Amino acid sequence: MGVCCSQPARSGSYDFKSNYAAPIVENVLFFPDGKMPCRSIMGGNNVVCKRDVCVFTITCNEIADEISAAHKRGVRVRIITDDAQRAAQGSDVDRLKAEGIAVRDDGVISGYMHHKFAILDKTILLNGSFNWTRHAVLGNYENIVVSNSTMLCSTFQGQFEELWLKFDKA
Amino acid sequence: MGVCCSQPARSGSYDFKSNYAAPIVENVLFFPDGKMPCRSIMGGNNVVCKRDVCVFTITCNEIADEISAAHKRGVRVRIITDDAQRAAQGSDVDRLKAEGIAVRDDGVISGYMHHKFAILDKTILLNGSFNWTRHAVLGNYENIVVSNSTMLCSTFQGQFEELWLKFDKA
Ligand SMILES: [Zn+2]
Ligand SMILES: [Zn+2]
Repeated sequence: MGVCCSQPARSGSYDFKSNYAAPIVENVLFFPDGKMPCRSIMGGNNVVCKRDVCVFTITCNEIADEISAAHKRGVRVRIITDDAQRAAQGSDVDRLKAEGIAVRDDGVISGYMHHKFAILDKTILLNGSFNWTRHAVLGNYENIVVSNSTMLCSTFQGQFEELWLKFDKA
Repeated sequence: MGVCCSQPARSGSYDFKSNYAAPIVENVLFFPDGKMPCRSIMGGNNVVCKRDVCVFTITCNEIADEISAAHKRGVRVRIITDDAQRAAQGSDVDRLKAEGIAVRDDGVISGYMHHKFAILDKTILLNGSFNWTRHAVLGNYENIVVSNSTMLCSTFQGQFEELWLKFDKA
């Protein structure tokens, strides 16, 4: 999997294909959206080989299924989530962990691990208001900004690694 | 106030001053942060004359005070928020409305107006996981991305105007 990480990430699910070489390419998804545009972004896309997910809550079975399928295809998935949300009814996080996906949480009763971002192959950032829940897709007003900004990707990758280490100790 | 809207926005509170002419300038705030870097961004900055706020919940008194002060200085503030959060204990939204700030909510029992973005003078977007609560500042893991991207600003301005009209009818 190391080789494909050095290749530029592409995606069929948002408009990066032709513009990927541009300095910064952004796209915005707004919700509610019955077409569930989030599914393929969250889990699919077989050119991605590394996927770092840092989200408050994952309860959308369709999104969880996509993450699971990506993991089974060999995508390296890591998930950081909130401890209380992880334990809540309907959470898909421990099911994903049982399948072998690396999971850590903030382990703190007060305070939320409230981020909702993901980084694909260190080169694409997804970030916004959107929790990975069915309700967010179909019922809420939400946004996800997709960006290939080098600054944003490296800054959020740094935040991910910092929290990953921190939550290991908890 | 119309004149200053045609001038480029500047800010002392994040690193836009020297780089504002660059194609896209971004900055990221991570939380928790006891220095409360959000305060001046949310309300202060007297070169801004228009401020459109679209956030799930506002309960942080310090942030609300900054918004109030901006309004009193003549900044045109509009707020879109979630109906249930607005009615919840500790919400500052109706206090801001009583002071003359234009407020609308989604007016829907099911479904959240879950966005957390703001647009300053149509030229700077704040967006991320961050609700405008004290807890988000001091207790949560959160992010705010600040960007002058023309695409992002116009896309989110469009979303704001769409929801503003929609929620008027509700
Ligand atoms: Zn927690
Ligand atoms: Zn509502």
